[in-house]
Amino acid sequence: MITQQKLKEAQQRSLAYFAKAGIVLTADEIEEIEVADFGIGELDSTGLEVVVYINTERCCAKELVLFPYQTCPEHRHPTVDGEPGKEETFRCRWGVVYLYVAGDPTPNPKSAPPKGREATYTVWNEVVLYPGDQYTIYPDTLHWFQGGADGAVVSEFSTRSRDEFDIFTDAEIQRLTQVAN
Amino acid sequence: MITQQKLKEAQQRSLAYFAKAGIVLTADEIEEIEVADFGIGELDSTGLEVVVYINTERCCAKELVLFPYQTCPEHRHPTVDGEPGKEETFRCRWGVVYLYVAGDPTPNPKSAPPKGREATYTVWNEVVLYPGDQYTIYPDTLHWFQGGADGAVVSEFSTRSRDEFDIFTDAEIQRLTQVAN
Repeated sequence: MITQQKLKEAQQRSLAYFAKAGIVLTADEIEEIEVADFGIGELDSTGLEVVVYINTERCCAKELVLFPYQTCPEHRHPTVDGEPGKEETFRCRWGVVYLYVAGDPTPNPKSAPPKGREATYTVWNEVVLYPGDQYTIYPDTLHWFQGGADGAVVSEFSTRSRDEFDIFTDAEIQRLTQVAN
Repeated sequence: MITQQKLKEAQQRSLAYFAKAGIVLTADEIEEIEVADFGIGELDSTGLEVVVYINTERCCAKELVLFPYQTCPEHRHPTVDGEPGKEETFRCRWGVVYLYVAGDPTPNPKSAPPKGREATYTVWNEVVLYPGDQYTIYPDTLHWFQGGADGAVVSEFSTRSRDEFDIFTDAEIQRLTQVAN
C-alpha cells in the first residue's frame, strides 16, 4: 500500500532521472508513471519506477528508474497458459545498475539486499551495467537488480509483459501496487 | 552498393545524432552501425542508419538515425512461414520524424519522396512524431518515414526483425546493404 502523496513524490523524483538520461516523456506518461512498492511499503529500499511505452500481445518496451540503492526484488517470469515467460533485455541508459542472475556467486558483490529480506535473495552472479551495456534475461530464470549510488535509468525491451504472473522469491511481495485513497 | 568510405562517413555522421539524443553506444555498436542505402546509392535521400540492440526469435529493439530529409522507403512486413509479420513501435527521441501510413491522405504533407521515385510512395496519412511521441505499425501494413529538417533519432521496439523479408513498393530496392570491397 502506498499513499497518494508518496506516489506523487516518487513520480516527481523520477523525473530528474529521466532528464539526466535525456529521455523525453509526454505529459500523459508523466502522469501515469508507475511506482511499484511491491507491497512492502519501504520504497527507498524495495521499489521501481516504470513508464510503459507499449505492451501488446507480442511486444513490450518500458523505461525503468531505480533510485540510489533501490532494489527490484528477486523474481522470474513463468510460462503462462502455454506461452513461454517474458524474455527481457535490460539496457542501462544512465547511472549504473547491478543485476544478479543464476550462476557462480560473485565474490564481494556490489549490492546488499534490503535489510531483513536477505533470505529472499538467492541468485548472486553479478552483472554490472554502465550506460550502453545490456543483458538479456531468458524466461523463467531468477533475477534481481539494484541501482548504484547515483541510481539508474534502464530501458527494458521484452515480449509481452504480464507482471501479475511474476513469481517472487519473497512470499510477502505483491507485484501490483495498491494506492491508498 | 555502398563504398567503405561512404559507409564509414555515414557511421561517423550518425554519431552526432546519437549524442544529441543522449544515447550511449558501446565501441562495438559504433563499429557495427548499419548504413542502409537500399541498393539505390543515394544515401542522402534514401537511407537509414541502424543500431540493433537485440534481435531474438521473439523480440527486437533498434535505434534509428535519419539524416535531414533522409527517407526510409515504403514497405511492409509480411507473414513469413505462418508467423505474423513484424509489429513495430516507433518512438521519436530527438528531432522530428514524418511517418506515413494507410488512411486518408493528409493534405499538404510535410515530406516529399526522393526525386524520381514518387510513384513508389502510395500511402499518405501523415503522423508527425516529436520527441516522446510514438506510433505502432501493425503487421503487413504499408509505411514509410522521413527525417525533418534537422534529422531524427527514433527508437524501434518490435517483434523479431527479419529485414530480408520486407516487401518494398519500389521494385528496385534491395533491403540488405552491399558494401564494395
